[in-house]
Amino acid sequence: MPAIAVVLAGGVGTRLGAGTPKQFVRLGDRLILEHSLATFSDSDLIDEVIVVTEPTHRDRVASIVEEGRHHKVSAIVDGGRTRLDSTAAAVACLADREGVVLVHDAARPFLPESTIAALINALTSYDAVATVVETADTIVVLDNERRSIVETLDRESLRRLQTPQGFRLDVLRHAMELASLDPAVQATDDFSLVRRFAPEATTTFVQGDLRTIKITTPEDLVVAEAFLSAWDAGKF
Amino acid sequence: MPAIAVVLAGGVGTRLGAGTPKQFVRLGDRLILEHSLATFSDSDLIDEVIVVTEPTHRDRVASIVEEGRHHKVSAIVDGGRTRLDSTAAAVACLADREGVVLVHDAARPFLPESTIAALINALTSYDAVATVVETADTIVVLDNERRSIVETLDRESLRRLQTPQGFRLDVLRHAMELASLDPAVQATDDFSLVRRFAPEATTTFVQGDLRTIKITTPEDLVVAEAFLSAWDAGKF
Repeated sequence: MPAIAVVLAGGVGTRLGAGTPKQFVRLGDRLILEHSLATFSDSDLIDEVIVVTEPTHRDRVASIVEEGRHHKVSAIVDGGRTRLDSTAAAVACLADREGVVLVHDAARPFLPESTIAALINALTSYDAVATVVETADTIVVLDNERRSIVETLDRESLRRLQTPQGFRLDVLRHAMELASLDPAVQATDDFSLVRRFAPEATTTFVQGDLRTIKITTPEDLVVAEAFLSAWDAGKF
Repeated sequence: MPAIAVVLAGGVGTRLGAGTPKQFVRLGDRLILEHSLATFSDSDLIDEVIVVTEPTHRDRVASIVEEGRHHKVSAIVDGGRTRLDSTAAAVACLADREGVVLVHDAARPFLPESTIAALINALTSYDAVATVVETADTIVVLDNERRSIVETLDRESLRRLQTPQGFRLDVLRHAMELASLDPAVQATDDFSLVRRFAPEATTTFVQGDLRTIKITTPEDLVVAEAFLSAWDAGKF
């Protein structure tokens, strides 16, 4: 079964500053999106790549793909307003296809091959696979008004979701179709959406990597630059 | 009312490598503990500092305090086996005293003055104050066997606990006394302990800072070195 990576690069957020969406911010000698694309281009486990982008960034993404010789990229798809819309656009583009898909945030430039391998392997036995890491901090719950702390959670039972998240394509397609019928649906991740709309799907998770951070804030960019230096220096 | 900082430096974990507990690992030109102590030494809002350490590290801590001229340090206290024991040791050392205490992890070297000020201010109206930051990742819950994901939490209502945590000393003392009667008590943080054992205490939280990370893993140390450089370069 072919393994298809879906790279979600549709963000328009400019919290990193410079008025540039985070996937187009420079990190070392390349843009963040270029790091993410390179991971999949370099992986023997990935057969094909779909990039989802915001319509006004389509030309820019096309140039990046062409100049970077990312030959596995088979389509650049216009994403929607939400994450759900963006993943759905990629799935729609893969109509009638079979295989497994790894849906990945373009803003997570450090993705070890070992995580890709763990996901692909888990997908031989499960329909949907999350990538998770431990949470180092104790997590508390606020009340509805966000005014006081009402509960301390058991950290040992919690995990942080990263990407990629892996799916059998038919299962993801089925969940997306059902989700699209409910206009009130909001999803911060695709795995949770599949759990909700395809409860019959078999699910598991694999261990992610502490370096696979999502770059959102200026602090994250400082962290990412340090990871890149450490990575290049062989410290990681 | 005097404001007393309690610096918990009792850790014996050596996950950072080099066989050295994290508070004694070098970060820039100083040890991690020295950064943490300097924050309170430099703050006009803090009147006194208590350092809790593991008995075998007492001499080392004493040297650090003396050489760094941390004149506010009034006591170096032997900590116990657990975090609860360590905080309790500091509280016992403050018997018959009044005031407010800020309990801080020595392994969090970057603590802005603004967080100290927010805590001290909140303690004029509340008995116990947590320091929190948003969680960037979606958090999920595993089943008891840690084999599958059973729930996705609403990220908007979650916060990560940092330190310092601030308390009226009498309220913390009362909670510690009750907690010490229950040998099965485990606590990853003092605020949650106070919420449990002193439910009548008034509580709130203040916004922390994304730089106030706890250094636990080698990845964290890479991050901390980058933060230190950015801080020194005025980028933060």
